[in-house]
Amino acid sequence: MNSRRDFLQKLAASVIAFPMLSTEAISCIENADKKNYDGPPLRVAIMGLGSYGTRVADAMRDCKRARLVGVVSGTPAKITNWQSKYNIPEKNCYSYETFDTIKDNPDIDVVYVTTPNGLHHDNVIRAAKAGKHVICEKPMALNAKEGQEMVDACKKANVKLLVGYRMHFEPKTLEIIRMRKDGELGKILFFQGLSGFTIGDPTQWRLNKALAGGGSLMDIGIYSINGARYMIGEEPVWVTAEETKTNPQKFKPGVDETIQFQLGFPSGAVASCLSTYSMNNLDRFFLNAEKGFAELQPATGYGPIKGRTSKGELTQPHITHQTVQMDEMAGIILDGKQPIVPVDGEEGVRDLKIIDAIYQACSTGKKIALK
Amino acid sequence: MNSRRDFLQKLAASVIAFPMLSTEAISCIENADKKNYDGPPLRVAIMGLGSYGTRVADAMRDCKRARLVGVVSGTPAKITNWQSKYNIPEKNCYSYETFDTIKDNPDIDVVYVTTPNGLHHDNVIRAAKAGKHVICEKPMALNAKEGQEMVDACKKANVKLLVGYRMHFEPKTLEIIRMRKDGELGKILFFQGLSGFTIGDPTQWRLNKALAGGGSLMDIGIYSINGARYMIGEEPVWVTAEETKTNPQKFKPGVDETIQFQLGFPSGAVASCLSTYSMNNLDRFFLNAEKGFAELQPATGYGPIKGRTSKGELTQPHITHQTVQMDEMAGIILDGKQPIVPVDGEEGVRDLKIIDAIYQACSTGKKIALK
Repeated sequence: MNSRRDFLQKLAASVIAFPMLSTEAISCIENADKKNYDGPPLRVAIMGLGSYGTRVADAMRDCKRARLVGVVSGTPAKITNWQSKYNIPEKNCYSYETFDTIKDNPDIDVVYVTTPNGLHHDNVIRAAKAGKHVICEKPMALNAKEGQEMVDACKKANVKLLVGYRMHFEPKTLEIIRMRKDGELGKILFFQGLSGFTIGDPTQWRLNKALAGGGSLMDIGIYSINGARYMIGEEPVWVTAEETKTNPQKFKPGVDETIQFQLGFPSGAVASCLSTYSMNNLDRFFLNAEKGFAELQPATGYGPIKGRTSKGELTQPHITHQTVQMDEMAGIILDGKQPIVPVDGEEGVRDLKIIDAIYQACSTGKKIALK
Repeated sequence: MNSRRDFLQKLAASVIAFPMLSTEAISCIENADKKNYDGPPLRVAIMGLGSYGTRVADAMRDCKRARLVGVVSGTPAKITNWQSKYNIPEKNCYSYETFDTIKDNPDIDVVYVTTPNGLHHDNVIRAAKAGKHVICEKPMALNAKEGQEMVDACKKANVKLLVGYRMHFEPKTLEIIRMRKDGELGKILFFQGLSGFTIGDPTQWRLNKALAGGGSLMDIGIYSINGARYMIGEEPVWVTAEETKTNPQKFKPGVDETIQFQLGFPSGAVASCLSTYSMNNLDRFFLNAEKGFAELQPATGYGPIKGRTSKGELTQPHITHQTVQMDEMAGIILDGKQPIVPVDGEEGVRDLKIIDAIYQACSTGKKIALK
């Protein structure tokens, strides 16, 4: 049982709101202006052909500007499968042995790294050294030091580094951010983020310290960390945290099962969050402010996101997150477009600094100041 | 502006669900079996004729078993007003100078203390020494030491001491507790309690350290503390807490504006709570468990309480909390009835021990172990 996938997919299923229309027909509706774009596409190679890589590949079928053109995998059978499924030419297929020769391939612009967390650092730096832009799945790395090395390497190689923060392009999320920025919510006071699901198979890489870098916090707690920042619109100045482990057999040392963490912000706003691998379907954001509130539930699943504010139900349409993300990232990489909420490597490092501090707060029992 | 009253009353207003019926008619509906009870009533004197005392007095008009028969006040004009409003005989009216002579009054069974927090300790002990049972509004005292002294004094005087925990008799709350006890929710994992409102008049006693004993935590955070205990059904073993003060002019030293606190329970269940005097209408409980969830919003206001569980909307009827509370307390005092959730002095002390620990955690920055 892969409960994680179940959890994130559960509500995605309900996107099939028009049972009489084929998938193709829905794509047509969503991408009515697809042919209006006739500039160069962003040509993407996906590294790591697991379930998330597949999700991104499928979502890119509907992209206006991003196109899947290549793959990197250690499993030849997967490459063959993807070649036929996504029509990928042989010359754009790489193993980890041949990957460095991608530097000589003029038909690939960017490598999207969807390998396990523990491999992000080396893979991203390797792609940068090959002269390719890089998109890295979150969490960007195992800690802020690694993350900064990745940022530095990409700068040095003069390539762009983006992090797969799909929620930064989600319409209901962006509407709340707009309301906050436009002052419609008044002074922001409190954010609550609950992120969790019951994780299945104990042998999966997400429960392996070396590959995952931790437990629930790295995988799903990061949504509440990142959400606290983009919802409140400030950077936290302190963090406290408490770890609870009820199943040490399943959650080995260094792999967190449940963490409560609290953040304080310069304005006096505070956040209370929960990250857990042992509770069913927790995916809630709540923002409380002087003049109103906003809440999302589910807040970060694959969608549709649902929510309301003090002004009423949020009705922005659902579009597959990864489709929007990849089109927007094409704009960022090809045109230098500025996203409303940053998705660059520095943004990833900000989250990692908070993750470092949360783990430090758990182990020391102390309030950790953030610079 | 008394925002506190506004907050708690706001939803109470919607109890007028039958606009064509008079208040008397509604009382008839609610108390159809009132005349079925023909045993002795619990004869109550209210001490402290402020807004909450008035609320209790009004609610008792609909009681089957509790009857307002006396008053204690330092303000003669209030006594005169209450005498005519509630038909109270002169012989049952006391000032604080004459109060001790209540011991010779055979027509009063119990004194309900609704004075400011800082006066509870002395007033309760004084009533006990006069041989009267005592109901004390929450928080029972300023700290656990005071609370224990009150418990001891009542035991010594052989009178009962109850705390005005009206939520312990609220039907939707009790339904969630029933579900938890009957195993319908499975293992309890997480409780979240958000308790807050924007407090008005800075000169009120609730913002006076000597009279209130603290700030929001004493007044409203206690709902989340108490709620965490009755929702999870365990006693916490540790607490952490963080205090945030944005307005030191309004919230003087020792008067907390905003506190986040976290509790850990023996089973591994955890709670994340917020107590604040600087946010609008926060009154939410969320209980997450292995097999389901429960949520209440508003969770502790004067009602109607609204909520749902994983099984659906909670539809238990609203009855004025203080009416039910006083009838149930009549049963406890007169018949030795055992409430589902305790309301005795020991229960009050349990909350105060946690309050003491939260303040200690705020001042030391440490995780505080609870016995």
